Amino acid sequence: MNETLLMLPGPTTVHPRVLAAMSRAVVNHRGAKYGEILSETNKLMADVFQTSNDAYLLTGSGTAAMEAGISNTVASGEKMLNIVGGKFGERFMKIAQTHGIDAQELAVEWGTAVTPEAIKEALDADEDIKAVSVIHNETSTGVAAPIEEIGKVMKNYDALYIVDTVSSLGGDYVDVDKFGIDVCVTGSQKCIAAPPGMAAITLSDDAWAAADKIDSPTFYLDMKAARKSGNKVPPQTPYTPAVSLTYAMNEALNMVMEEGLEARVARHHKAAEASVAAVKALGLELFADEAVSSATVTAVKMPEGISDDQFRGTTRDKYGVELAGGQDHLKGNIFRIGHMGNISYKELTQAFAAIGMTLKGLGVIEDAGAGVASIAESYL
Amino acid sequence: MNETLLMLPGPTTVHPRVLAAMSRAVVNHRGAKYGEILSETNKLMADVFQTSNDAYLLTGSGTAAMEAGISNTVASGEKMLNIVGGKFGERFMKIAQTHGIDAQELAVEWGTAVTPEAIKEALDADEDIKAVSVIHNETSTGVAAPIEEIGKVMKNYDALYIVDTVSSLGGDYVDVDKFGIDVCVTGSQKCIAAPPGMAAITLSDDAWAAADKIDSPTFYLDMKAARKSGNKVPPQTPYTPAVSLTYAMNEALNMVMEEGLEARVARHHKAAEASVAAVKALGLELFADEAVSSATVTAVKMPEGISDDQFRGTTRDKYGVELAGGQDHLKGNIFRIGHMGNISYKELTQAFAAIGMTLKGLGVIEDAGAGVASIAESYL
Repeated sequence: MNETLLMLPGPTTVHPRVLAAMSRAVVNHRGAKYGEILSETNKLMADVFQTSNDAYLLTGSGTAAMEAGISNTVASGEKMLNIVGGKFGERFMKIAQTHGIDAQELAVEWGTAVTPEAIKEALDADEDIKAVSVIHNETSTGVAAPIEEIGKVMKNYDALYIVDTVSSLGGDYVDVDKFGIDVCVTGSQKCIAAPPGMAAITLSDDAWAAADKIDSPTFYLDMKAARKSGNKVPPQTPYTPAVSLTYAMNEALNMVMEEGLEARVARHHKAAEASVAAVKALGLELFADEAVSSATVTAVKMPEGISDDQFRGTTRDKYGVELAGGQDHLKGNIFRIGHMGNISYKELTQAFAAIGMTLKGLGVIEDAGAGVASIAESYL
Repeated sequence: MNETLLMLPGPTTVHPRVLAAMSRAVVNHRGAKYGEILSETNKLMADVFQTSNDAYLLTGSGTAAMEAGISNTVASGEKMLNIVGGKFGERFMKIAQTHGIDAQELAVEWGTAVTPEAIKEALDADEDIKAVSVIHNETSTGVAAPIEEIGKVMKNYDALYIVDTVSSLGGDYVDVDKFGIDVCVTGSQKCIAAPPGMAAITLSDDAWAAADKIDSPTFYLDMKAARKSGNKVPPQTPYTPAVSLTYAMNEALNMVMEEGLEARVARHHKAAEASVAAVKALGLELFADEAVSSATVTAVKMPEGISDDQFRGTTRDKYGVELAGGQDHLKGNIFRIGHMGNISYKELTQAFAAIGMTLKGLGVIEDAGAGVASIAESYL
């Protein structure tokens, strides 16, 4: 009863089954027992990525996996195109710049999605582009990029296709092999609903071929070291992994597969549609273009005349529901409802009740129940 | 009863209090609740480092902290002296090379410790050396370096003093400010006895001054980003931290402070002395020079005629005690007994009983009880 409901774009509420798995006794990370759970978890991870290539757990945040993905496959001095329509697109730019990559930006208005045509034009205009990075689900704006359609374009070019699915994998439709993704990264604490602290990555043959030509510019995130250790008997990680978080990931991924990927993605889409309808029922405005609104996070314009502290402070402190604010120039201008992981009408009901009560309390709306009523109608 | 006793140089057995803390509900890593636990944990970490400077938790292994320590404070092209007498000294060399640092090696025979005089000579011979790295406790050989005495030498030079205390902090005597250490790194799963997956680092004013002149060559391990986020209200990490492992570190560090640093270090030294005596009682030979034998891990020469699999496989599979083997060229030539974290005569009794029974079973010794009897005598 006292726990705050997390309606964030990560971390998400962790299921008791996962917490219980995490608290099992720590074992030797160089032994057979850990090797077994590591390879099983990496295999589950590959299944969720929908790839026949190997997947690798990394101890670190999604950002660590983003850096591993770029720095191992794009060499210093090589040209790379980054699609930037939010904070995480900017992050790929900054990571590329950190490693001396010739980082080109394809800017997209925040709240809108890049089109496959724009990427095609950019690739046609410059044949030196060795890689393209796309954020599947731009958490900062609540926009989903059309990664399947972009994949169809990318198949006609040699450039590597690098996709961040940190806040979408396990919640929106991602099929790494079918979409032709060369480097795909994700995090533990989003739609997979494990605690934060682990990330995962998978590389295609083309990505490995690129990696084999590069001396990794970082030691900790060297994917060739990860591959070498992964091939040992028993399988290992190059440096000590978060053993307890591996247990947690294993259990969380088992829960993903028990539900089934298709059903899980459908459940997330349902939550997104219900959230959009409830936002409208409250008379609020979406921040993102509705046509490209995310399956896992809904961004909403902050009603005029109230501050982020007033709004989110009240939903959190008075009603026990934690929403996310805007980042950077969107701070105070939007709020974001995460609906990822273990999410159903129950959590959305609480969230929209809290939003409605808060807005009525602040004198912004007259009908506190319009949002939560809409959720009930959506899930009827 | 079925759990294997870990007598490894990390990970170590995690106390149920720490496991329970870890399994608490995950909170928003950008909110006040996490900010409070983060700053409390960083403060505890600084207390254990014995520094008035800030300490920072990193989500990653000890290697990540080693890389953060070097790459943020020594610029590409600058000259750095690395003391190499084992696998972790080699690791500092490799990390430095990864970042284009002019990495010089002061080689020390494996099993022996560097002398302060040798470091003084090297610094006198080359005034371009900007930093010196020392592994306090070389886990691969069971040797402790005299970091207090080296610190007295280092105070006469401008070079930064970088010390890896991954497998010593909380188990052997480390006083960062008194020893004049500029960069000190450690890990969660050694003497602090939390699960693996977190590391910590502290930087002196001189180290920060060096860092302020360098663009961090990695994005994930950028310490200036960590400092900036740490100064926010509430305090944060630049990228999503392992929230559950922060809980675990908090509880484990509280247990360290409840015991008292001095008492904890004395307990580890007692375990080391008892182990050395028991090794001798079994007629076995130490690998490390006894005068510099580690407080947290004892390395022992493998008796002639038996293989690593025979010996460690038996202690583990038949007797439920997991020991560490040798690494690299020491594989099969030594075994290592970790005695770090929550260690008392009870664990050593089990370990030396298992060692004695195994060796008698393999026909190497006649008296299976000599080691465990020696432990009892030591702790009488």
